[in-house]
Amino acid sequence: MDLAGRDLVAIGDLADDELEALLDTARSFQDDPLGARGRLDGRIVCTAFFEPSTRTRLSFESATHRLGGAVIGFSDAGATSTKKGETLEDTIRVLAGYADLVVVRSPQAGAVRRAAGIVDVPVVNAGDGAGEHPTQTLVDLFTMQRHFGSLRGRRVALVGDLKYGRTVHSLVPALERFDAVPVAVPAPGLGLPDGLGEGVPTTDLESAAATCDVLYVTRVQQERFHDAMAYEAARDAFRVDAELLERMSSKAIVMHPLPRVGEVAADVDPLPSAKYFEQARNGVPVRMAILAHLLGEAP
Amino acid sequence: MDLAGRDLVAIGDLADDELEALLDTARSFQDDPLGARGRLDGRIVCTAFFEPSTRTRLSFESATHRLGGAVIGFSDAGATSTKKGETLEDTIRVLAGYADLVVVRSPQAGAVRRAAGIVDVPVVNAGDGAGEHPTQTLVDLFTMQRHFGSLRGRRVALVGDLKYGRTVHSLVPALERFDAVPVAVPAPGLGLPDGLGEGVPTTDLESAAATCDVLYVTRVQQERFHDAMAYEAARDAFRVDAELLERMSSKAIVMHPLPRVGEVAADVDPLPSAKYFEQARNGVPVRMAILAHLLGEAP
Amino acid sequence: MDLAGRDLVAIGDLADDELEALLDTARSFQDDPLGARGRLDGRIVCTAFFEPSTRTRLSFESATHRLGGAVIGFSDAGATSTKKGETLEDTIRVLAGYADLVVVRSPQAGAVRRAAGIVDVPVVNAGDGAGEHPTQTLVDLFTMQRHFGSLRGRRVALVGDLKYGRTVHSLVPALERFDAVPVAVPAPGLGLPDGLGEGVPTTDLESAAATCDVLYVTRVQQERFHDAMAYEAARDAFRVDAELLERMSSKAIVMHPLPRVGEVAADVDPLPSAKYFEQARNGVPVRMAILAHLLGEAP
Repeated sequence: MDLAGRDLVAIGDLADDELEALLDTARSFQDDPLGARGRLDGRIVCTAFFEPSTRTRLSFESATHRLGGAVIGFSDAGATSTKKGETLEDTIRVLAGYADLVVVRSPQAGAVRRAAGIVDVPVVNAGDGAGEHPTQTLVDLFTMQRHFGSLRGRRVALVGDLKYGRTVHSLVPALERFDAVPVAVPAPGLGLPDGLGEGVPTTDLESAAATCDVLYVTRVQQERFHDAMAYEAARDAFRVDAELLERMSSKAIVMHPLPRVGEVAADVDPLPSAKYFEQARNGVPVRMAILAHLLGEAP
Repeated sequence: MDLAGRDLVAIGDLADDELEALLDTARSFQDDPLGARGRLDGRIVCTAFFEPSTRTRLSFESATHRLGGAVIGFSDAGATSTKKGETLEDTIRVLAGYADLVVVRSPQAGAVRRAAGIVDVPVVNAGDGAGEHPTQTLVDLFTMQRHFGSLRGRRVALVGDLKYGRTVHSLVPALERFDAVPVAVPAPGLGLPDGLGEGVPTTDLESAAATCDVLYVTRVQQERFHDAMAYEAARDAFRVDAELLERMSSKAIVMHPLPRVGEVAADVDPLPSAKYFEQARNGVPVRMAILAHLLGEAP
Repeated sequence: MDLAGRDLVAIGDLADDELEALLDTARSFQDDPLGARGRLDGRIVCTAFFEPSTRTRLSFESATHRLGGAVIGFSDAGATSTKKGETLEDTIRVLAGYADLVVVRSPQAGAVRRAAGIVDVPVVNAGDGAGEHPTQTLVDLFTMQRHFGSLRGRRVALVGDLKYGRTVHSLVPALERFDAVPVAVPAPGLGLPDGLGEGVPTTDLESAAATCDVLYVTRVQQERFHDAMAYEAARDAFRVDAELLERMSSKAIVMHPLPRVGEVAADVDPLPSAKYFEQARNGVPVRMAILAHLLGEAP
């Protein structure tokens, strides 16, 4: 197994031992921050965000700095030559001349795969439209692993928009690779797409709370609904609050990729099962591990 | 006195000895830049600017780099999840997972106090609407102290918009704590608000020039006036120029928080009493002192 | 010759030995990256971009980091006090208090010269409207020198918009200083302006390909033409593709300051004569050399 010099475009690009190695390194960086210091001294990471995503961008930048590296980049396409008609390929080739690794966020599915194919430096997918968001999936797996140890047999209820939610699409097969059990709790009309939902049991939110180890809640976007009433009904039916959590086992946890807009009520925040802010924080050691491995500087 | 781990939301949060300690440290960093190097090695400061303020942001970033720290952040709210409906509280909690200290600029008075209340890392107020801007006040005090030594008995004329000017509201009580004497020179209809103006003598600009140690000039914003003529009259009546400065004592100085748009004429710039660019430059050592103290790395 | 503390506003500001020294240093940094490490430790470069230019900004930022320096700055004027009516002079004076060197990009010809005149720290012109873009010219010269060794007698065909193209205006006199021979291949109505074109022979694209060492292609902007058909005709007549390159000598090269929008066909990219991505990459060592010399840290 050697991840040095590789790209990370989709979670499926990683063999099982590579996935494990990344999670192991993330754990060691989190437990021993000093062991990470200086690994990327003299290296430059470019964050090329063709659409804004402050959270993902800042966690990559924080990860780079924690390893001693430097960052260049842009946070939206407005200031780039894309506006002048430059192709993505040309932009990426130029950026690859300025940095040792390029993190790309694009509104267009498949764009990061194309970018990765044309440059020699490692390219990391930070989300490409309806495509993949592999580093988020790694963060999710890491968060569950830190809490439960092994994921084997853990029941993970996926709640909300399972049809358009990119996060969920990457998470389902990843869970299956770790022998965890995904369970679908879809908002009305927003079930798992064909090819992904086979073999995934469906249940309602209350049953999920009573029987699952993880409630993985996602945002239901208003624009998926034809009218405001249907949206509000769905939103309210899929709200996770402290009352619901009384049905959960004491070891069970609530996760959310954030941002949330009410799907998880504020009264959950102080409860020990609320793991979404820890999940966000885990973005840093996980992305540190990714950067260190792809740049050949892992422990 | 221990500032390590504390927030800085309002100047009133600081005890007298804490205020003095910050100014002392700023002086030592300015006099001996090498003594500052490397103090924040491995630390990350997040500049979370929900409204643009290039000057304040860049002076914080410069201060961080002078101390050896790294910076992540954003320069306006456009690129953040706030647009997707995320609460300030959630955003700050996530940022606090990425950085060791968060500097917040907000258009909303009180927002930074709320932010500071919910996270464990230190939070610094870089201006919250009509609220406070404590680091500007520290820069102002530092600039006067560097010039005069003690502030005791110094007469500081506050010129222009004293009603809406946040800078002035923080400066008046701070001056009084140092036994300096604020004097009001308000533009028409823009006097000090109730609760702040008691005991502050009012005078006109010519008398102030003749009798004060500092002319602290602020911008009079056109939108405060009902018609353009009233604005222009006020603006012209409160313009500080070289001719006016002939009335000043040779030790007296002119300050301005900048940006200016004509309140201080360009013919003042070459005069030794013009201190506003030095005042801007002082933003760096003062903010270095703040960062070093709150992060427990002061000398 | 001493470049320490100097500004770089126009290529004509540099004496011949200074130009050579910059190119020599760029070469040494490219050949021995370790020799560059740490030269700007503790230094801060401000990238003040009053109009967006991601490519130029990122290459300056990469250059700074490769030398161990830190960067502060902004990528467009939207977030600056310019919007509040602050003069360029005031903004630059403030920035000069925060950084050790200021890189300025402005939409206004002459603006950077004015900025350089008022502050003590070195100011570098990163393009000022129809004015100059000296660092691009240095990158162009460096790229030719790396390929050919001496430029003496080399024929450099300038293709496309020679009337408005700032890049070309700086390049013509620079080539003449190195005893290279510029040749004009203008798009219709877009010839070299008076005062620059004297003595420069004009030819067509096919002859240029057959007789020149360099095809330096520039973008023909649609807004220069009165109607779409004239634009399309010009664009198509000046497209450089693999078929045209068969006329070139085996040592000849194709350059382009990028971004391109079809002036150089994609089928040229894999050919050894395609030098435009290497040219972009050369932006880093050349700008490293500029920063190191102006900050007194050259080898």
